Amino acid sequence: MLGCGTVGGEVVRLLDTQADDLAARIGAPVELVGVAVRRPHRHPELPEGLLTTDAAGLVARDDVDVVVEVIGGIEPARTLLLEALKAGKSVVTANKALLAEDGATLAEAADASGVDLYYEASVAGAIPLLRPLRESLAGDRITRVAGIVNGTTNYILSAMTASGAGYAEALEEATRLGYAEADPSADVDGYDAASKAAILASLAFHTRVCAADVYCEGIRGVTAADIAAAATLGCTIKLLAICERVDAGGEDSVSARVYPAMIPQSHPLAAVDGAFNAVFVEAEAAGQLMFYGQGAGGAPTASAVLGDLVAVARNQVVGGRGPRESAYASLPVRPMGAVPTRYHVSLEVADRAGVLAAIAGEFAQHGVSIAAVRQTGGGQLPLNGDNEGGARLVVVTHGAPDAALAATVDALSGLDAVRGVDSVLRVEDLGRSVSALGVAG
Amino acid sequence: MLGCGTVGGEVVRLLDTQADDLAARIGAPVELVGVAVRRPHRHPELPEGLLTTDAAGLVARDDVDVVVEVIGGIEPARTLLLEALKAGKSVVTANKALLAEDGATLAEAADASGVDLYYEASVAGAIPLLRPLRESLAGDRITRVAGIVNGTTNYILSAMTASGAGYAEALEEATRLGYAEADPSADVDGYDAASKAAILASLAFHTRVCAADVYCEGIRGVTAADIAAAATLGCTIKLLAICERVDAGGEDSVSARVYPAMIPQSHPLAAVDGAFNAVFVEAEAAGQLMFYGQGAGGAPTASAVLGDLVAVARNQVVGGRGPRESAYASLPVRPMGAVPTRYHVSLEVADRAGVLAAIAGEFAQHGVSIAAVRQTGGGQLPLNGDNEGGARLVVVTHGAPDAALAATVDALSGLDAVRGVDSVLRVEDLGRSVSALGVAG
Repeated sequence: MLGCGTVGGEVVRLLDTQADDLAARIGAPVELVGVAVRRPHRHPELPEGLLTTDAAGLVARDDVDVVVEVIGGIEPARTLLLEALKAGKSVVTANKALLAEDGATLAEAADASGVDLYYEASVAGAIPLLRPLRESLAGDRITRVAGIVNGTTNYILSAMTASGAGYAEALEEATRLGYAEADPSADVDGYDAASKAAILASLAFHTRVCAADVYCEGIRGVTAADIAAAATLGCTIKLLAICERVDAGGEDSVSARVYPAMIPQSHPLAAVDGAFNAVFVEAEAAGQLMFYGQGAGGAPTASAVLGDLVAVARNQVVGGRGPRESAYASLPVRPMGAVPTRYHVSLEVADRAGVLAAIAGEFAQHGVSIAAVRQTGGGQLPLNGDNEGGARLVVVTHGAPDAALAATVDALSGLDAVRGVDSVLRVEDLGRSVSALGVAG
Repeated sequence: MLGCGTVGGEVVRLLDTQADDLAARIGAPVELVGVAVRRPHRHPELPEGLLTTDAAGLVARDDVDVVVEVIGGIEPARTLLLEALKAGKSVVTANKALLAEDGATLAEAADASGVDLYYEASVAGAIPLLRPLRESLAGDRITRVAGIVNGTTNYILSAMTASGAGYAEALEEATRLGYAEADPSADVDGYDAASKAAILASLAFHTRVCAADVYCEGIRGVTAADIAAAATLGCTIKLLAICERVDAGGEDSVSARVYPAMIPQSHPLAAVDGAFNAVFVEAEAAGQLMFYGQGAGGAPTASAVLGDLVAVARNQVVGGRGPRESAYASLPVRPMGAVPTRYHVSLEVADRAGVLAAIAGEFAQHGVSIAAVRQTGGGQLPLNGDNEGGARLVVVTHGAPDAALAATVDALSGLDAVRGVDSVLRVEDLGRSVSALGVAG
C-alpha cells in the first residue's frame, strides 16, 4: 500500500477485521506486506516491520502482487503506479486527479502487462458507479451521466438553501465542521468534480476525456439571491458534473462540464442534501438510473478500495484479469460554447416603456429563444414615461449554444435600460419538462 | 438464445443495432446463432434460419459459446441450463424463479465447468444491483438490503396513495394499463418479490437462501384505510423485500421477508412511485447506498442481459471467467416469528373506562412495548360509565419478535372491549428514528 491517511488507515483496519471473510470470498488470504509512508513515526498503529519510506522499493518487491495507492496527487503516484504496472502488478487506486490527467497512460501500461487497473474509489466514494458503467451497462448506449460528485460543495449549497446563508458563511460552517478543507479551492472551484467528470465521461462513452477537456465553474459566485431566485422557480441549485453524448449533424461528440445549475425540485437529484453524492445515468435501453450514497470519508472510500482489491485478487486466483476499459470510440470533446444549455438571467432594469422590447430584442438578435419572463418589484411597465424605481426582470431561456447565451448576457449589461445583472445561472432540466420549472411562459 | 418474448425480442434488436459497439467493447463480434421458441411462425421478425423448436439441440451445438435464457419458469429452463453449464457453456439468465428455487445447483454446475453464470436481469431489471453486491461490495460487510423490487405492486400502492382508491380499483387500473398481468397473483401475493429477496440475500450475505426460506405476504389485504392511517403517521405503505443480517447472541443468521409495511415518508424509498424499483443497501464501511431505476420492461431488462453477455464474452476473449459467487457463510435463516419487527395496529374499541388499560395489559403480557398510542373518534375516554359510540385506538409498538406481535393482535381481537381490528401493518423505519414516524409517544 502506498500512503496511509484516512482512507489507507481504514483499508488496513478492514483488511484485518475482515481477513477471514475476504479469504473465503477470494479463495486465498490477502496479506498486507508493506505500507509506504513519508513519516513512519506517525503510524504507531501499524506493525513497524510493515512501514517503509521507500515506496519505489516496496513496489518493486517480488512478494507484491497488487499495489493499492492512496497517496493522491500526480507525482510520485504516477511514476510508482507505472512502475508497478510495468512489473506486472495489478493496481487499485483512489487517485482521481491522476486518472483524470493521465488515465490513458495507466490503462495502456495495464493492458501491455495484462494486469488489472481498478479505481472505483476515485469517483463518488462508496457508491458503486464505475463498475456499473464499465460492466453492467456495457451492452447499452449511455446518453448522459449527471450528478453531484463533490460532498463539500453539496454541503455548502444545501446549507445555503436550508438557512438562506450566504456563500462565505456557509463555507465557514463547512470548514468548522470538517466538510471543507482549510484550502477549499479544489472543491469549491469545481476541479475535484471536473476530475470525476473526466473519469465518468471516459467510461460512459468508451472514449478518453481528461481533466483539461472539462469545462469548469465553481460555486464561489453563488449568492443567497441566486438560491432564492431558484426557489421562486421551483428549483434548487446544485453543483453538477454533466457528461453527455451530443449528436450534432450525425457526428457524435461528448460534452463534459461542471457548474452550479438550477434543477427542478422534483428531480431526484434535488433531494440529495449535505455531504451525500448521487449520480443519475440515462441509457437508451436501461432508461433512467440513479446511484446514491456517501461520496467521501475514510470508511466509505475504503469500502470501494477493498471491493476492487477483492476483484483483482479473485482474478489472480483464477489466473485471469477483469474486463479492461475500452476507449475505442475516440469521440471529440465539444467546446463549451457549442454545448446547448439554458440560462436563467435576473436583471435590474429601469421601469419604463420599451425596456422589455429592448431586452427581448437582444435575446432575439443572438438567436436565443425566451421560455419565460417574469417582472417583479417596481410598478407595472407603464405605457408611457418612466418610473423612478427600477424593476427586476427574470428571463429563462430555451436551449441555445452556451456561447450565444453568454454573448447575450454580455450585451444585456451594456444596455442603457439594464441597471445591473444580478444573477446568471444555467438551468438543467435533466429530462424533466420545461413546465416543471414552474415558470409561466 | 432460449425464448424470445418481450425481453428476448429486445435482446435481438440491441444485438443487431449495437453490433459494432459490442464487438469493440468485447474484442470480438457476438453472433446470434440460434433462437429456440415454441412457435416459430410467431416470430416473422427473425431470420428463419435462426429459429428452432429444439432447445436442447440448440444448447448442444458446438458453435454455441454462451446460452442466454429468457424463457422463465423452472422447467424446461433448469434442465437446459444445467446441460449448457455441464457442456462448458456460460449462461446468462433473467430467470428469478429458477435462481431462487435452485440457484445452488446452477452455481455448482458453473463452478464444476469453470464457466460463468450471470443473472443481473433477474432482479430489478436494468438497475445494476447484483454486480455491485457481488463485486463492488465484496470487501465490505453488508447488513441490510431493503427495497421495492416489484413494479406491479408499487404501481398499485402508489395509485392507492395518490387517489385514495381501494385495492380492487387500483388493480383494475393497473391491469388495464398493462402494469399487471391478467393473473396478477405472482406479483400481488409477493412471490415475485420473494424470489428476488432470496437472490439478494444469497449474494449480500454470501450464503444460500431459497424462495421457500422467504417469509411472504402480498398486498391483497391492504385497504384504503391502511393507506390513510399510514399518511396520518407520516408514512407510506410499500411492498418491501427485506434481507437482514441478524446478530443474536453472537450467532449470525439472516432474515429474508416480503410484506407491505409502513415506512417514513422522509425515507428515500418512500418517494419511489409507479412502476419504478429502488433498493437500499447498508454496509458497515460503505454506509447507506441506494439504487434506483426501471425494474421491468423489455428494453431495461434486455440492457441487463446484454451487460452480462458482454461480461461473459469479454471473459471468454481473455480466456478467463468472472468472479464466482461465494456461499461460504452458510448462515441459518431466521424463522419469521423470531425476527424483530414493529407493528401498527388500529382497533375499533368501546369508548368506556378501562379499555386502554385492558389493551395495554395485553401488549405487556406478550412482552411488547408500546411506542405510541392515539385515540381518535368517539368521546374522550370517560372516567366512569360507557359511551354509546366507539372510538378508534391506534397503537404503534417498539420492536419485538414478530410472533409476540402476532399473538398480541390475536389476543386483542378476543377482548371484550375490542369491537374490531381494522388494520395491522408492520412498520419499518429502515434506520430512521422512531420520531420520524410522527407519532406522539
